[in-house]
Amino acid sequence: MSITGKNYIGYSQSAENAKTFQSYVPVKHTHLPETFHPATAEEVEKTMQLAERAFDEYAAIPASQRADFLMAITEEMMAMGDELLERAHQETGLPMGRLQGERGRTINQLTQFANLIREGSWVEARVDTAQPDRTPAPKPDLRKMLVPIGPIVIFGSSNFPFAYSIAGVDTAPALAAGNPVILKAHPAHPGVSDLTAQAIVKAAQRTGMPNGVFSMLYDDGYEVGTALVQHPYTKAVGFTGSFKGGMALYKMAQERDEPIPVFAEMGSVNPVVILPDTLAAHTESLAKTLAGSVTLGAGQFCTNPGLVFTLDSPALDEFEKIYAREVGKITSMTMLTEGIRKNFFKLRDKALAEAGVETLVLSDEKAEGENQSQASIARVSGKDFIKNPNLHEEVFGPFSLLVVCEDSIELQAALKHIPGQLTTSLMADAAEAAGHPQILRLLSRRAGRFIMNGVPTGVEVCAAMHHGGPFPSTTDSRFTSVGRDAILRFVRPLSFQDWPDSLLPDELKDSNPLGIWRLVNNELTQDAI
Amino acid sequence: MSITGKNYIGYSQSAENAKTFQSYVPVKHTHLPETFHPATAEEVEKTMQLAERAFDEYAAIPASQRADFLMAITEEMMAMGDELLERAHQETGLPMGRLQGERGRTINQLTQFANLIREGSWVEARVDTAQPDRTPAPKPDLRKMLVPIGPIVIFGSSNFPFAYSIAGVDTAPALAAGNPVILKAHPAHPGVSDLTAQAIVKAAQRTGMPNGVFSMLYDDGYEVGTALVQHPYTKAVGFTGSFKGGMALYKMAQERDEPIPVFAEMGSVNPVVILPDTLAAHTESLAKTLAGSVTLGAGQFCTNPGLVFTLDSPALDEFEKIYAREVGKITSMTMLTEGIRKNFFKLRDKALAEAGVETLVLSDEKAEGENQSQASIARVSGKDFIKNPNLHEEVFGPFSLLVVCEDSIELQAALKHIPGQLTTSLMADAAEAAGHPQILRLLSRRAGRFIMNGVPTGVEVCAAMHHGGPFPSTTDSRFTSVGRDAILRFVRPLSFQDWPDSLLPDELKDSNPLGIWRLVNNELTQDAI
Repeated sequence: MSITGKNYIGYSQSAENAKTFQSYVPVKHTHLPETFHPATAEEVEKTMQLAERAFDEYAAIPASQRADFLMAITEEMMAMGDELLERAHQETGLPMGRLQGERGRTINQLTQFANLIREGSWVEARVDTAQPDRTPAPKPDLRKMLVPIGPIVIFGSSNFPFAYSIAGVDTAPALAAGNPVILKAHPAHPGVSDLTAQAIVKAAQRTGMPNGVFSMLYDDGYEVGTALVQHPYTKAVGFTGSFKGGMALYKMAQERDEPIPVFAEMGSVNPVVILPDTLAAHTESLAKTLAGSVTLGAGQFCTNPGLVFTLDSPALDEFEKIYAREVGKITSMTMLTEGIRKNFFKLRDKALAEAGVETLVLSDEKAEGENQSQASIARVSGKDFIKNPNLHEEVFGPFSLLVVCEDSIELQAALKHIPGQLTTSLMADAAEAAGHPQILRLLSRRAGRFIMNGVPTGVEVCAAMHHGGPFPSTTDSRFTSVGRDAILRFVRPLSFQDWPDSLLPDELKDSNPLGIWRLVNNELTQDAI
Repeated sequence: MSITGKNYIGYSQSAENAKTFQSYVPVKHTHLPETFHPATAEEVEKTMQLAERAFDEYAAIPASQRADFLMAITEEMMAMGDELLERAHQETGLPMGRLQGERGRTINQLTQFANLIREGSWVEARVDTAQPDRTPAPKPDLRKMLVPIGPIVIFGSSNFPFAYSIAGVDTAPALAAGNPVILKAHPAHPGVSDLTAQAIVKAAQRTGMPNGVFSMLYDDGYEVGTALVQHPYTKAVGFTGSFKGGMALYKMAQERDEPIPVFAEMGSVNPVVILPDTLAAHTESLAKTLAGSVTLGAGQFCTNPGLVFTLDSPALDEFEKIYAREVGKITSMTMLTEGIRKNFFKLRDKALAEAGVETLVLSDEKAEGENQSQASIARVSGKDFIKNPNLHEEVFGPFSLLVVCEDSIELQAALKHIPGQLTTSLMADAAEAAGHPQILRLLSRRAGRFIMNGVPTGVEVCAAMHHGGPFPSTTDSRFTSVGRDAILRFVRPLSFQDWPDSLLPDELKDSNPLGIWRLVNNELTQDAI
């Protein structure tokens, strides 16, 4: 397949805009030849009209056929072979091995949602049968299930060209649930977006999905995203990226005549707390593990551990020495975009210049011609950390701050200054952890995921994963973007009162033809009624 | 017990404000002697500090003890006997029979949540066990469950002094989940609020709950509500009332440094569609049923059917005649507050003066000395309805507009002008309904609950109830305020990665000591691991 550079409006391609942009190649600090056309206002309108028209038809398609569509996407993506991976590599500078793994994860996400909707119990069917003879008033028959909500606008993320982009963690559940999807492609990887969109369109066509079930639009500015979020047909928004970007979309969505839900995952400093006995017992392995996590993917993960807390204790010197040595060993790393690189060095330098911050490892900013970074780490006292809000914020990239507290009281005070996080981690064995209930509570309350004796990087795609967290890590702590429950962002319950069995959706019919788990008169069962 | 008129700040009573207000008695258009003290800014601050301190302790109390607390509330409320009902009657003008029923429903809600948390499966536990030998990377052990989020601010509603007020549909699930609750009492019934608060405080004390698990503050203005919603310790808001009130709180919550979820249920016109064959077959019973529903509780229900759609058909004349006769028969009804009565007549008169609106039954506004209304109904053509947005809005009180459409096409066009609703209803047998798939889709998409051959008034408290709906009926179509799923508004998922079994909450331990349903490696089971 070849890159068209055109917007994918349902089954049509469209390039009305004379203005174009090109892909940036971070490893070579150059651009690729293909041109991409930002969507015009008319193209946005056409896209939304098509999505709205597709909604009723798509929502009514049996789940098994929607599952076929999702699996067809995986087949079309795999059929593109190395072409897809190579383009992703060119546009992101991420290593081929990592991209292969990420594609695998994306295929896995689509497959899990296909399986979820094939099985069917995810709709949380609840049936309360009628009691016509109840006094003083008869009880009606009530049945409830989750239903799709309408066209969903999704923003591709820069740091995961597959798993959080065109066919990623927002698209898979939104399509699985029965909603049309409109993708705003991330300008950092338009070519891989183009190819992935072609895979989705081809999959939709060959599995008989309605025209408009999927569209993808380009923009290297903010106009298309704004128009999509403000469009009255849009019913929810999915976003992964910066705090500034996420909040801009969130505010925009709340200011509409009809406010709509925005799930924005906006990053996190992912504090790691190391308790002293554990620091003493595992000094070297902790230092090495943390060094690996801080520098993984050039630190460009929302789960990057940006703050490491510990207590002043005998093992600390040795830990710092090994930690600095290991971080210093990491060779230079390509960053995703020029903007991310520049911002990294700006924020890192700002952090290093704050009062009381002592540099442990300082990487050099390479020449302009190379979009590279090296890891830096620094150290600050709990006291200085507590009084300086600038140190509580994320530095996106390979940087981490070691916060050394005098005692457990100061550590608790420091943790109280940390806002909501995707993850928190505690390095402690069961006995030492049990001795610090306040630390456990403080870390629990701030976290979407609380890890014991592990680093936050690495987000498993499974039912028990919660990839979300209290504000400001996301805009709504009640939802996740990873795992089966990610579908809950894009559905709503609908109750059916006193419906004739013949008109009810299969999920709610007496005979339970799909054999799903249902809560019938408050008992979970797969039985018919 | 006697009414204190003081704010209930945890286990203390406080009346710092020199300003006071009194209860209005709608049936007599007079006031009761007791004075109530709006909370001061200092009292609000003290309340929130106490709630925040109570949170960690309360969240850690075993569910069985929280269930005891909820059941103790029911006992204390029942122990107040007729005193509570009589005060409610004085302050609302609602008939004693209705209030007795409503108290029963409130007790039922508390009991259902006590049972829900005693059983325990509501936490949606998910366990994915580790695969240490998986390649290329080992899979960690991940477990997830719903946890409370912190202090919840709840606004009592004017039209249900028990079921949607101090111990009502928001308080019961918020407390059940493990969150402290701060009630802003509705100034329309401060006395019954005072008594109910005493019941809750007494129940909390005798079941050993932490001081601050529940507080209740007065205000007959907006200051206290504003301060509560803006307070940084507040983590979510529950509200039932007007569109204007709900949206003011929603905007306020979004403009905080940390935006928080607001579930505002803001009313609805609850459109009812009658298809022609069914109109012909059941002319008289439909007219009588609708007349009863429009006038129930003086029309002061969020589920009042404010719009009735039908097609011009042979049975229409007869239907109109009986409908008008039945509505005309209803004797005058007391309205809850002066403000509600005045607003009702203002909006009704405005609707009746719109182009093409023909009055079918017109009630008179009684003298100032009586806070009474009588039901009014009117008729308009589909054509006039479609072009006039003023007719699409709610008139809170006993008013309903009959919209007569020329044909099914015009009916569909009219329904497209209706925004989101708590309920929609279709009067049609299975065969006739099946012949109108577009009508079914239009009504489904706009509804939280879709009723066949029944009126929207009457909200059953059960698992399959969805009392919510697309905007503007609520601020978030994904949540309900009635039924077991109402608890989902006030919790969030938390993942535990690689935790030692001894430190995990009981819900997630290998042995499953609570015997709850869990999703273990994608299979629902009550078994241990």
